[in-house]
Amino acid sequence: MEKRLTGRIAPERICLLKTPRPPEGAVERFLAISDPTGLTSDAMDELGIASGVIGASVLKPTIPGTTMVGPALTVRNVLQRIDPLEGARKHVNRMAEFEAHNLASPGDVLVIQGVAHMSNMGGISALTGKRQGEAGAIVMGGIRDIAHSRVVGYPLWANEVSPVTGKWRLETVEINGTVQIGEVRVEPGDLVVADDSGVCFIPRDYILEVLELVEKKAKAEDVRCKAIVGGAAVPDISPSTYGEKEE
Amino acid sequence: MEKRLTGRIAPERICLLKTPRPPEGAVERFLAISDPTGLTSDAMDELGIASGVIGASVLKPTIPGTTMVGPALTVRNVLQRIDPLEGARKHVNRMAEFEAHNLASPGDVLVIQGVAHMSNMGGISALTGKRQGEAGAIVMGGIRDIAHSRVVGYPLWANEVSPVTGKWRLETVEINGTVQIGEVRVEPGDLVVADDSGVCFIPRDYILEVLELVEKKAKAEDVRCKAIVGGAAVPDISPSTYGEKEE
Amino acid sequence: MEKRLTGRIAPERICLLKTPRPPEGAVERFLAISDPTGLTSDAMDELGIASGVIGASVLKPTIPGTTMVGPALTVRNVLQRIDPLEGARKHVNRMAEFEAHNLASPGDVLVIQGVAHMSNMGGISALTGKRQGEAGAIVMGGIRDIAHSRVVGYPLWANEVSPVTGKWRLETVEINGTVQIGEVRVEPGDLVVADDSGVCFIPRDYILEVLELVEKKAKAEDVRCKAIVGGAAVPDISPSTYGEKEE
Amino acid sequence: MEKRLTGRIAPERICLLKTPRPPEGAVERFLAISDPTGLTSDAMDELGIASGVIGASVLKPTIPGTTMVGPALTVRNVLQRIDPLEGARKHVNRMAEFEAHNLASPGDVLVIQGVAHMSNMGGISALTGKRQGEAGAIVMGGIRDIAHSRVVGYPLWANEVSPVTGKWRLETVEINGTVQIGEVRVEPGDLVVADDSGVCFIPRDYILEVLELVEKKAKAEDVRCKAIVGGAAVPDISPSTYGEKEE
Amino acid sequence: MEKRLTGRIAPERICLLKTPRPPEGAVERFLAISDPTGLTSDAMDELGIASGVIGASVLKPTIPGTTMVGPALTVRNVLQRIDPLEGARKHVNRMAEFEAHNLASPGDVLVIQGVAHMSNMGGISALTGKRQGEAGAIVMGGIRDIAHSRVVGYPLWANEVSPVTGKWRLETVEINGTVQIGEVRVEPGDLVVADDSGVCFIPRDYILEVLELVEKKAKAEDVRCKAIVGGAAVPDISPSTYGEKEE
Amino acid sequence: MEKRLTGRIAPERICLLKTPRPPEGAVERFLAISDPTGLTSDAMDELGIASGVIGASVLKPTIPGTTMVGPALTVRNVLQRIDPLEGARKHVNRMAEFEAHNLASPGDVLVIQGVAHMSNMGGISALTGKRQGEAGAIVMGGIRDIAHSRVVGYPLWANEVSPVTGKWRLETVEINGTVQIGEVRVEPGDLVVADDSGVCFIPRDYILEVLELVEKKAKAEDVRCKAIVGGAAVPDISPSTYGEKEE
Repeated sequence: MEKRLTGRIAPERICLLKTPRPPEGAVERFLAISDPTGLTSDAMDELGIASGVIGASVLKPTIPGTTMVGPALTVRNVLQRIDPLEGARKHVNRMAEFEAHNLASPGDVLVIQGVAHMSNMGGISALTGKRQGEAGAIVMGGIRDIAHSRVVGYPLWANEVSPVTGKWRLETVEINGTVQIGEVRVEPGDLVVADDSGVCFIPRDYILEVLELVEKKAKAEDVRCKAIVGGAAVPDISPSTYGEKEE
Repeated sequence: MEKRLTGRIAPERICLLKTPRPPEGAVERFLAISDPTGLTSDAMDELGIASGVIGASVLKPTIPGTTMVGPALTVRNVLQRIDPLEGARKHVNRMAEFEAHNLASPGDVLVIQGVAHMSNMGGISALTGKRQGEAGAIVMGGIRDIAHSRVVGYPLWANEVSPVTGKWRLETVEINGTVQIGEVRVEPGDLVVADDSGVCFIPRDYILEVLELVEKKAKAEDVRCKAIVGGAAVPDISPSTYGEKEE
Repeated sequence: MEKRLTGRIAPERICLLKTPRPPEGAVERFLAISDPTGLTSDAMDELGIASGVIGASVLKPTIPGTTMVGPALTVRNVLQRIDPLEGARKHVNRMAEFEAHNLASPGDVLVIQGVAHMSNMGGISALTGKRQGEAGAIVMGGIRDIAHSRVVGYPLWANEVSPVTGKWRLETVEINGTVQIGEVRVEPGDLVVADDSGVCFIPRDYILEVLELVEKKAKAEDVRCKAIVGGAAVPDISPSTYGEKEE
Repeated sequence: MEKRLTGRIAPERICLLKTPRPPEGAVERFLAISDPTGLTSDAMDELGIASGVIGASVLKPTIPGTTMVGPALTVRNVLQRIDPLEGARKHVNRMAEFEAHNLASPGDVLVIQGVAHMSNMGGISALTGKRQGEAGAIVMGGIRDIAHSRVVGYPLWANEVSPVTGKWRLETVEINGTVQIGEVRVEPGDLVVADDSGVCFIPRDYILEVLELVEKKAKAEDVRCKAIVGGAAVPDISPSTYGEKEE
Repeated sequence: MEKRLTGRIAPERICLLKTPRPPEGAVERFLAISDPTGLTSDAMDELGIASGVIGASVLKPTIPGTTMVGPALTVRNVLQRIDPLEGARKHVNRMAEFEAHNLASPGDVLVIQGVAHMSNMGGISALTGKRQGEAGAIVMGGIRDIAHSRVVGYPLWANEVSPVTGKWRLETVEINGTVQIGEVRVEPGDLVVADDSGVCFIPRDYILEVLELVEKKAKAEDVRCKAIVGGAAVPDISPSTYGEKEE
Repeated sequence: MEKRLTGRIAPERICLLKTPRPPEGAVERFLAISDPTGLTSDAMDELGIASGVIGASVLKPTIPGTTMVGPALTVRNVLQRIDPLEGARKHVNRMAEFEAHNLASPGDVLVIQGVAHMSNMGGISALTGKRQGEAGAIVMGGIRDIAHSRVVGYPLWANEVSPVTGKWRLETVEINGTVQIGEVRVEPGDLVVADDSGVCFIPRDYILEVLELVEKKAKAEDVRCKAIVGGAAVPDISPSTYGEKEE
């Protein structure tokens, strides 16, 4: 059965109706790692996967303490070119992240290349995303209605917060195309891993390879933490779990 | 009976002894809206009221989860021109936000055009503001003694935090005059509406007009939220509560 | 008995094996002051001690509500010059803040002149610092594994958060030498006083002098707070506790 | 005859093979105005054309003293996602502004939504643009080989200069589509007017209307300048040429 | 005879009709020093005059190679609060730097605390200032019509350049009052000394004292330069002209 | 014969008395390339030499049109910790870039890791450097007396300009040690190549390898430029001189 569209964006601007699924079980296994972004970033480094991480001082979490993992459903917004007060009078609304909610599969993460100094996602949108089963969203640009999205339990990592609506200021021009989030290029289906330290974007083809190295590192870290708590002298805390050569 | 002044600032630099009152009941009605800055900003847009909103990534709340509404009692600070260490030795204190506390009516919001990289309001000042019945303060510039102001329950939205005192570094040069807060011009009596998403400044003459549109929008949003929770398909979630044309 | 070193940094790059101790009881007395950085900054101003304070909007606390006081154990990091992906493949780890943990006396505060856009301290390092009895750390540069360091109760004030490791990106080039933290020059043994408003660095020779003035000011503030709570009129709230001339 | 393409970008990513031409004579008439961006910006303001101007402290001219006018031929670049050193070894060049040069009509202005911290146009590219008869280029992002482009007389307005190539760091993803230059949305065929004060982007449909108002204002300014030079008292310098109401 | 005003600003907002004159001959003597801002800043340091200098990377000269000296005629601008497009339609012009030109004595320097992201002085204004015999202007905020002001030989030091007019965006609220230029507080009659390295603001009461020390230092530097050119060994180039203790 | 030192810095803080010389003829061969930084950056990319380039929008040339090539003689400055006005009164001068001039071999480039917001090199220092035969200087931090250094023909690339002296504000703590210039780590003897597009730092061991590739590329570019000028169609302008695979 074909998906009914919202009509908020032209169908030809939707590159993929369904975000590619991550390998079975991968999301759950990443979620089982505590504080996963550090190890994920390390694994990507060691596997030679460049330019895929943004720190939490840029993309700030709205619900600290949350870990979020899921495939990227991408949205690209650009400015409208209109006096926003005229746009507001005429109700020229060109935001279409609702189409992304409409297309979302459970577990998807909205990844929005947004416009600065205005909201690219508000509270009703967060509520809708939650109901659709999304894991949450990443927004390079502003968001609003923070209290609302916290109440409904829809976590966002965003670089700005502003009450100013994007409705008559921006236009959604593409869904599930390539986006650039800060200095990271993200494709639909790339795996988003986010926590209090920041956000990693794993290219789709490397998800399992990264995951396996992350799990290996997590085990090594557990051993090391136990040694530390158990009183090992600092010079005896092997640097090996840091992944050095002698490992 | 005439108000006794503190003498911290020359009387001719106090433009108004009493901040203009907002329309009866307006503050309470705004406080009844949850997360009000988004809808307030939208209403201002639609009514053609320009340049009145600052996001929470600029003016950051010290007590997240708080909503604050009240008329602006304005304070303008500028740098002293003195070596601060010499000022400290000689105790040349030219801060006068205490005069604003002295003049405050219950419910007023101090709106301080402050000086960067130093504190324009500390803990004792926050305690005094609380006792005077103020709703809280907006400070473009630094503040300090955050833990103290949190304990006494006096919320601030400020763009900087610094332990460095303004006492021998700045001078309060005007109370209840025009101030410029970021890129917003604020007059005494303008209504401040602040929450976790940011701060709106409604010009005094438009308070009721904005309020009525905000209340209308809040009702429409409630209907829409219920539809979403109730399972309406995304294409059927009418965009009308977003205020579009077909509304 | 000589301290066994970790070998992560050449011994000649460790300027002092043991951080100078603060005057007996000084740490406890500072900790007894609530919200101490404001008064500490004021006391430094009045005693003519320049350039020693950084606000919490620059060095942001990971565990709000915490006060931390202790002598500085300094670490200086600089960039490696290598392609980080090549460094990761070859496991060229040149971080040596573990040597600082190794040398730390209970109560020390690691003060790291770090490298931007990467982590200069992670969760295992925080755990190790905690076990060694450190009070916490100040990092100009990024940190990661925020959730982990929160869980183990090791507070950090840092200006950036990023999952990206410094292991193959930076090199620790000096321990217990002079560091520059933002626009403050810090020597080992300087006393760090940190809270939600920011961080003060008191030069070692002035610790007691500052402390005594802070305690005197804290008492005066208590008196003043009681007067305020007790209902004194604002013009009667003597400005003297602000330390002005008439005091 | 069909244009032969360079093959550097997929043909379906070229939205228009030929940039729409401005009204006959419009370019020359704009060029006849000295210092045209100020009056152009004023005319756009008065005609209600929003958000179309960027100052020269953002887009800095490489050849001060030049005025450039011409229709926008747009190029959009995004980051590649690859380790640039690996890209360089493998020579993975995805820049395609040469296709824009190939398609350029005489007088066109390349308007590049580029990538930061790297070059989006170098000296050989500037030479090619010059030979193709382009008026010059606007680049939001870095450029390089400044001395070369100055020698060949190809003016650029750019916000960054860097020797670092974009060849293995960026990818050209669209030609003659919509671009966002700072906070201005630009369509192919919009008229670019640039001088030492900055850059105006006039939407295609308003070129003549803006031009006529600019010419009217320029005449009024001439009259006013003569009055000033002739010794008119300042209060008698009619504010009317500023375009006020009494005009 | 009383000065006829322009009526662009209310007379009560003009604090002084005539800028205080600097000591006889002081301007000429400063102009006789080549590159005077370095020595002026040094003299202010040594005389204990704080916070009076801004570098040329903030306030950039429009005509490099120029030295400008003269007393400050101050202007303070703040934002209007109106939709600028509506302001443009209605021609609501509230700029009044022309009143400052009207009041200027020959040799005055306009010092404008302007508004960011728009022009606070254009070409016709520069022409008027030139004709009035002003030395030039300092603008914290944008300026425009750079080519025009260069042609008429009216130098400006400004921190932004933008074609966007301030006419319907800002309001001049005070002339010859206190202004804050970056982190320097300037009073009317303070002496402005500007060159390619930046701008110094000497408080009026210290002009001669600073001048005498500057002249003494300039002589010492001449001696030293001759020694260097003459081949003195570097260790023999006495550091005394740097003003050190042994001097 | 041993070099006589200036005594401005402790001898043990001078890591090398003489900067390592570049390979014979290398400087001249680099100077023969016009606009060399672009090709140098490309060659470093292709040879896998990471993180060695800074753009001219960060390090801005004081004498546009100049190319400078020479080995790095490094200087590291940090803040003093003293009230600068007290330092000025007491003449506590701790700058020691004159020791670097003293040690300089003809052709050396001073590379100064300076302190922000103050001058790390003034006009007399530039004159001294010129007389010593230095090629010029790179300064991350402020410089002053720009007009003077231009007159003597000593080019600098710096990221800030300020009249404020570093004499009583900073201390030179190391000469010919490792420095970090922005995000590049530089060792003494690394080859500096600078022009209007920016600055490249070639690690000492790679100078010849880079040079040979640069010369090869320069020849290919010449061929290409001639083809362009000669009228080759754009699709026929082989991308090979860009260094792609098919080359």
